[in-house]
Amino acid sequence: MGKQSFYDFKIEDIIEFIMKRKAKKVLIQAPNGLKHLFLKHLEELKKELPNVEFIISGDPAYGSCFLAEIEAKRVNADLIVHVGHTEYYKATIPTIYVEAFSKLALTEKLAKKLLNYIKNLNVKNIGLCGVLQHLRSIEQVKKLLENNGYKVYIGKHGPYTKYDGQVVGCDYVSALTVNSNVDLHLIVSGGLFHPVGLGLATLKPVVKLDPYEEEVVDLTKEVKKVLRKRYWRIMESLNAENYGVIVGMRKGQYRPNLVKSIEKLVRRKGGRSTRIVMDIVTEENLLNLDNSFDAYIVTSCPRIPIDNLGEFRKPVLTPGEAYMVLTESLEKYIFPW
Amino acid sequence: MGKQSFYDFKIEDIIEFIMKRKAKKVLIQAPNGLKHLFLKHLEELKKELPNVEFIISGDPAYGSCFLAEIEAKRVNADLIVHVGHTEYYKATIPTIYVEAFSKLALTEKLAKKLLNYIKNLNVKNIGLCGVLQHLRSIEQVKKLLENNGYKVYIGKHGPYTKYDGQVVGCDYVSALTVNSNVDLHLIVSGGLFHPVGLGLATLKPVVKLDPYEEEVVDLTKEVKKVLRKRYWRIMESLNAENYGVIVGMRKGQYRPNLVKSIEKLVRRKGGRSTRIVMDIVTEENLLNLDNSFDAYIVTSCPRIPIDNLGEFRKPVLTPGEAYMVLTESLEKYIFPW
Repeated sequence: MGKQSFYDFKIEDIIEFIMKRKAKKVLIQAPNGLKHLFLKHLEELKKELPNVEFIISGDPAYGSCFLAEIEAKRVNADLIVHVGHTEYYKATIPTIYVEAFSKLALTEKLAKKLLNYIKNLNVKNIGLCGVLQHLRSIEQVKKLLENNGYKVYIGKHGPYTKYDGQVVGCDYVSALTVNSNVDLHLIVSGGLFHPVGLGLATLKPVVKLDPYEEEVVDLTKEVKKVLRKRYWRIMESLNAENYGVIVGMRKGQYRPNLVKSIEKLVRRKGGRSTRIVMDIVTEENLLNLDNSFDAYIVTSCPRIPIDNLGEFRKPVLTPGEAYMVLTESLEKYIFPW
Repeated sequence: MGKQSFYDFKIEDIIEFIMKRKAKKVLIQAPNGLKHLFLKHLEELKKELPNVEFIISGDPAYGSCFLAEIEAKRVNADLIVHVGHTEYYKATIPTIYVEAFSKLALTEKLAKKLLNYIKNLNVKNIGLCGVLQHLRSIEQVKKLLENNGYKVYIGKHGPYTKYDGQVVGCDYVSALTVNSNVDLHLIVSGGLFHPVGLGLATLKPVVKLDPYEEEVVDLTKEVKKVLRKRYWRIMESLNAENYGVIVGMRKGQYRPNLVKSIEKLVRRKGGRSTRIVMDIVTEENLLNLDNSFDAYIVTSCPRIPIDNLGEFRKPVLTPGEAYMVLTESLEKYIFPW
């Protein structure tokens, strides 16, 4: 089975949304991993809507915080098709969020692996969450676990997610609301990005149910490794005086109140800071600023310091870590904000 | 001598400009190569203007076409300090262009090298140009050559340059207006970027006078090498049917009329095209779109196909090259537009 058929993009819903809005120019935005899969449907869309011009956003889309409103305005698009994420903020241009649910179900093989794995852990209460693509299968997983005597907790969604049990890179509220009840968190997800975030946010054991690999993977050690690295960067920052405070260029990554409260903490600690506005925070861009700052605080996206700049020559902190450093409260790791 | 003292940033002029405009929030934008040099003056600016907040644009600034207006609006800056380039288009926010003239003069050693080198070429008429940073020394070079019996031509500046004799990566008009009179072009510049562009635009021999290296370098062969590669990409595109037309996100890189005329040529040749709006055109971003297109045409900046994507797995063309392909006019290489 090609990856192409893994996702249900609900093309009919997109066509209906565009027709209802009588849009003439439509901007398509998708995260890099889904872009070529969604674009396989481009000819279909063009055929069904011959009077609509489709324009592609070619930049990366890390989340719906990165909604391509600037691009849409530039090319006078009157509608955005945003693939792979749920709404993050109210857009000024009509936007349809294409949720791209995976067609992968919980196979019998994977169910067996899961039960076998958990049996050995001596746990009773399990927090259950998943990324949007695999959210359809969490009810299945819940039933499976309950039928086998476990108590399963699926928390209410947070401010940047839409469904209960859904997590994104910066919003683990649905896991946090049940955190005190559970012995471990089980997440339906591929990769490391979301499971590691889940561990950093909850500080509890994390097991991943990976539908792509059909594997059950304990990531608790992986999370601890990341946590050790983060404490290294936090310790390095304790004597910093001159901070570069990175501010997002995109509306969904612009948090002026967070910036102001961080600046206040910097001043209270006797330091100074300069704002740096940036669209995409890369090592190269930071290197070109360097020698000007002792440490950086990224207010646009809490994943950048951890996932992209963990090894940078100067410490690069999330807002939560900055709070720890600036108030010298090192007892509990704070993530994401 | 540290690189720091190479450039005259005219800090007093910047202070005066900011005071006159009563700006409260100033966004500083500089190309990556000059950023850390200019930022050495940040504390000086803060001290002289204690009531002004200075914010840094951390993204790259390839030219003044990339003016950080989006960033300025995001952080409510009321003035932009743009370092290293002259004006490209009328900004909607008061902007001072800091011309960053090099303090390097034409040394006796370099003058001798130049005369020795040119003596052996059997030329009489020389076109003379330079990049902004070294423009102060071209009058000196002109005198030197004239005193030694050469006829020197410095052309009128083009639409995207400010001074006669000035060239930028996409505007070689000051060389083109004297092209028919000269045997070779002499350019005062470091690196390869501007000299190679000069050769592609004029198709005449190019000699570089490099004030950093104190060297005279004939780049005619280098230009021919690039030209051969470009013809390879052009030949590969002749049978393309499905074009991705890349449109810039920044105002200075958005050329709707150029886009429309290219799309018309594509249709006339029986092909089809899709617009792709993009801020920074990288190999990674293009790879994520791939299999959808046979070839790409970049309308935002003519240097991207040549300097960054010359080896990409699909041909990526400049507008001039696209014109050659779509009209099957291969006799003369067209650069930049």
